[in-house]
Amino acid sequence: MRVLGIDPGSIVCGYGVVEKNGSNITLVEYGVVEAKKRFESLPQRLEMIYERLGGVIERSLPDEAAVESVFFAKNAQSLAKLSHARGVAMLAAAIKRIPIMEYSAKEVKRSVTGNGNASKEQVQFMTRTILKIEETPDFFDATDALAVAICHCLKRNSQRGSARSWKQFVEDNPKRVLRH
Amino acid sequence: MRVLGIDPGSIVCGYGVVEKNGSNITLVEYGVVEAKKRFESLPQRLEMIYERLGGVIERSLPDEAAVESVFFAKNAQSLAKLSHARGVAMLAAAIKRIPIMEYSAKEVKRSVTGNGNASKEQVQFMTRTILKIEETPDFFDATDALAVAICHCLKRNSQRGSARSWKQFVEDNPKRVLRH
Repeated sequence: MRVLGIDPGSIVCGYGVVEKNGSNITLVEYGVVEAKKRFESLPQRLEMIYERLGGVIERSLPDEAAVESVFFAKNAQSLAKLSHARGVAMLAAAIKRIPIMEYSAKEVKRSVTGNGNASKEQVQFMTRTILKIEETPDFFDATDALAVAICHCLKRNSQRGSARSWKQFVEDNPKRVLRH
Repeated sequence: MRVLGIDPGSIVCGYGVVEKNGSNITLVEYGVVEAKKRFESLPQRLEMIYERLGGVIERSLPDEAAVESVFFAKNAQSLAKLSHARGVAMLAAAIKRIPIMEYSAKEVKRSVTGNGNASKEQVQFMTRTILKIEETPDFFDATDALAVAICHCLKRNSQRGSARSWKQFVEDNPKRVLRH
């Protein structure tokens, strides 16, 4: 099973695809969509995110997608901008019929590091260790996206009888399905 | 010149297209994308908005688009949801190379009714009068979308030498171009 993790942002949007085979999780690809705030308007940036994520999906063919839930941001303006990007990122997956699940930042941190209050550096370190990434990625956004994807894989693993269908998973976990 | 006005929302998203000929503004079409909150998840609703607005654009071929700027919402959750929908609505126009301008709610109300603090009912009444709409639309969202489109037409009219190019307009009005 392949999982696309997304860490949305209107300036830098991270993405990462991992493959889960039994309890083994390996890296497929990761990266960021980075906009030049000075040169690109918000609609142009949204288009970049949509097109680039669409390309990643076509290339790596994920079965499922995972994204962090949004509960707060620095301020209303940041929350609004982040949500514009998050909407477009979700659309990129939805339009290709990829189910999207969401996890809180605490769940992601706990899954990946064992500590719900881990620092960004700790999350990046553990993500790199799990996926055997030797280089230090330029952006936390990319490893954060991979961390969400790993979190989804681990949560799926921890379900009793993890070989069950996606339909079953959705039925068992109604609260996990993004239905705002 | 044809203008698409959008009043985004994740449950009800209003749209309206008007045609401007000199100082004359006429209705082309209007409506809402209405989701059943109980049945559709957020990603599904975003897809509906994207597909439906894409259809409106293909059908009515607007030259420009206008949307209300977002400064506040009832609460953070509402702001986030509205912004998901707004991002997707903007994408629908951006991907078809339609420039998008934004106007504050006050500007829209002042343009259409002459009063920046007009009520929703007053905005709807004046919008229906200007566009000679005889029926009472079911949703304020639809007439609000038309009001934004009318506002854009009137603002364009009030520019000196209104027959100038879009490029010139953008150059003269850098603050009007959506560049968050």
